[in-house]
Amino acid sequence: MNQQKSVLKVGLAGLGVVGSEVARQLTTRSVALGAAAGCELRLVAIAARDRMANRGFNTSTMMWVESAADMAAIEELDIVVEMIGGSEGVALDIVRNALVAGKHVVTANKALLAHHGSELATLAEENDVGLLFEASVAGGIPAIKTLREGLAGNEFSRVSGILNGTCNYILTRMEKTGEAFDNVLAEAQNLGYAEAEPSLDVDGIDAAHKLTLLGAIAFGQKPNFDAVFIQGIRDVAAVDFTYANKLGFRIKLVGVAEPGMAPRMQTCLLPLNCQLAKVNGVLNAVEFHGSPIGGTLSIGQGAGAGATASAVLADLIDIGRGRITLPFGRPVAELSEINSTRKQDGEDTPFYLRLMVVDQPGVLADVTKVLQNHQISVESLLQQGRSPDDVVPLVMTTHETSGTALASALVAIETLEAVRARPVAMPILPDEVEG
Amino acid sequence: MNQQKSVLKVGLAGLGVVGSEVARQLTTRSVALGAAAGCELRLVAIAARDRMANRGFNTSTMMWVESAADMAAIEELDIVVEMIGGSEGVALDIVRNALVAGKHVVTANKALLAHHGSELATLAEENDVGLLFEASVAGGIPAIKTLREGLAGNEFSRVSGILNGTCNYILTRMEKTGEAFDNVLAEAQNLGYAEAEPSLDVDGIDAAHKLTLLGAIAFGQKPNFDAVFIQGIRDVAAVDFTYANKLGFRIKLVGVAEPGMAPRMQTCLLPLNCQLAKVNGVLNAVEFHGSPIGGTLSIGQGAGAGATASAVLADLIDIGRGRITLPFGRPVAELSEINSTRKQDGEDTPFYLRLMVVDQPGVLADVTKVLQNHQISVESLLQQGRSPDDVVPLVMTTHETSGTALASALVAIETLEAVRARPVAMPILPDEVEG
Repeated sequence: MNQQKSVLKVGLAGLGVVGSEVARQLTTRSVALGAAAGCELRLVAIAARDRMANRGFNTSTMMWVESAADMAAIEELDIVVEMIGGSEGVALDIVRNALVAGKHVVTANKALLAHHGSELATLAEENDVGLLFEASVAGGIPAIKTLREGLAGNEFSRVSGILNGTCNYILTRMEKTGEAFDNVLAEAQNLGYAEAEPSLDVDGIDAAHKLTLLGAIAFGQKPNFDAVFIQGIRDVAAVDFTYANKLGFRIKLVGVAEPGMAPRMQTCLLPLNCQLAKVNGVLNAVEFHGSPIGGTLSIGQGAGAGATASAVLADLIDIGRGRITLPFGRPVAELSEINSTRKQDGEDTPFYLRLMVVDQPGVLADVTKVLQNHQISVESLLQQGRSPDDVVPLVMTTHETSGTALASALVAIETLEAVRARPVAMPILPDEVEG
Repeated sequence: MNQQKSVLKVGLAGLGVVGSEVARQLTTRSVALGAAAGCELRLVAIAARDRMANRGFNTSTMMWVESAADMAAIEELDIVVEMIGGSEGVALDIVRNALVAGKHVVTANKALLAHHGSELATLAEENDVGLLFEASVAGGIPAIKTLREGLAGNEFSRVSGILNGTCNYILTRMEKTGEAFDNVLAEAQNLGYAEAEPSLDVDGIDAAHKLTLLGAIAFGQKPNFDAVFIQGIRDVAAVDFTYANKLGFRIKLVGVAEPGMAPRMQTCLLPLNCQLAKVNGVLNAVEFHGSPIGGTLSIGQGAGAGATASAVLADLIDIGRGRITLPFGRPVAELSEINSTRKQDGEDTPFYLRLMVVDQPGVLADVTKVLQNHQISVESLLQQGRSPDDVVPLVMTTHETSGTALASALVAIETLEAVRARPVAMPILPDEVEG
């Protein structure tokens, strides 16, 4: 009911798998998408590295833009869709320039927004245009629209989620096969689920980008990637799955954002019976907690051409419908800074600890002494079998403690003579949406 | 960006647990809700059966409407929220009259819309007002907004879901405890999860109301409750859970809506590993399938004051924001009629069959003969232990067949001398969002 124009002209920069899928959808489903948007969404300009590649849609009626950075300067465009990626360089230039030129921007670029979100949202405000990024967080889950619209009447207390399909796949396979991290990573790389350079995924960086954006919208936090506490999945060993299962838990990389705290992306233990623990393989999930709703959870593909294109189309339709809100739900001037002075700490939680120790008398006494000195109390302890003088795992769960207290205890524990590897610690998250 | 007024005046008819929660939210969180809506949402008039009850919010500034049916006649109201319930009577009068009087209507009344949706949507169209009903389908899951907005760029192929918490609770408990339906129903009644008169829930009617609305929005079907095929959970016996588990399935009441077919609400078997099968207890879930997204699933509370109030608030905020679309996404004149001539049949599916037969030679031959005559082929067969001349369960799964072919085979099977109870048949649904 609110559209002003009968045609919105779209420029698309970046024709990788997702960009090409967006172009195919816009060109082959024009009537249906026009009906949904209340106006025609016409793809008129494209830019990509290789002009000659056949991408499965007809480019003959479109303007080919030699240098993607020039996209923003095309007068007739109403909307620029940025599908290039990367937090700096061309992507940043295009988005900046398009906003300044008074064009709406749709992007899937989580890194860009996690690093430059405040600046770009300010530009969108100043130029009275939309900056929409549903596709940047779990394309197959309309997480941003759920926060902004479906759950708009709630005061959020916590948004958490499994936000990286590669990590979830690796953890699922490690649990199932009992294989070591390196082997499963290699398998994931062969299957195309992980990059040759896997750091962005397995070190939790990609997932933390997404968490930054969810926290910004849910709690009015200024997006600030540097304030996020991040602990990836590299330290998880096959033996941890055995112990976690014995204790009634599953290991997942979970991001948690809460009001007034730094977002945390951590490999952690979840009760086997909670809904997030049941989300396996490459699937992603986002859990929303607030009042009055209580809790609700969405599950879907985190990546892939179709799921991500679906999110881009929803943003384009919102622009057509005039359903444009401020990028982070309120003016940038009203966003709060994240308090990152104690970014390792959320609420106190119980922890899972695994130490590799020489199986000899006195070890346990030494370790528990250190914990006691840091006011950390042990809830349970597992030491399976005996193997005198060999290095064996010693597994403990603690009562609720702060992440900083634990970190300093672990430094001391690592110096003990019998401790032969860096201790592994993972928080144990509470059971939320159960069923 | 689209609101015209600085205050929207709201009248609320019905102050049960949900209505009272809506009133508490509007009165105690006025500033936050106003910020979300872009204008004040002011509750100015209320109606309920008992004026004197203390419902936890201050009514002193509100107009008390003696007869709820008069709510629509109050000139100053912009929005009427109908929380009375029931498909006829006062609720129908209020909604009709409010729309005719040019007021927006927000309701949680699935029965009303499943039966009178076309008439009411026509009134909304004619009077250029909103008729919003997010709360009518699984309050804790923003299913309608997900169809309309989050997934607006998709062509839907299937919407399915667990839409009744009472049934899901009963089935979950039956599986866990091995108790009979009647015992578990009594337990659910004691806990307040089931009504004294449980038919609306356990016969699948409430869930079918909701499915009618999902199908209408996803596929542009005219809402027509009478066209829905419904098979509730009363026929499920404890023994079915044992066999289903052995075969790798879980029993759930699942609704399925697909384009061009009558929606079906059926007790059915789901692969243990699919996401819907992992949704237990009173939780609800809605699964969306379409292109380009593939599949996505949301899980949440189906009922309860907080979850339902959250959905009502989201609708009120949409009205404030001017985000009003046609009730079923397109003009009533463009909605298609559901073809209900073969409403028992969706796509052909495999079925689970359980017969209670006298354990004697020849039974199996007789049964399989009947199936063969109806072109139904058996995939697997389970007959545990031997107990000559006693009545024992005979369980089979079939290859894909139509519901009507199976229904007519079952009529013939029931006439066999050795068959001692009405055969129980449940479709086996495919594995969709897996993980």
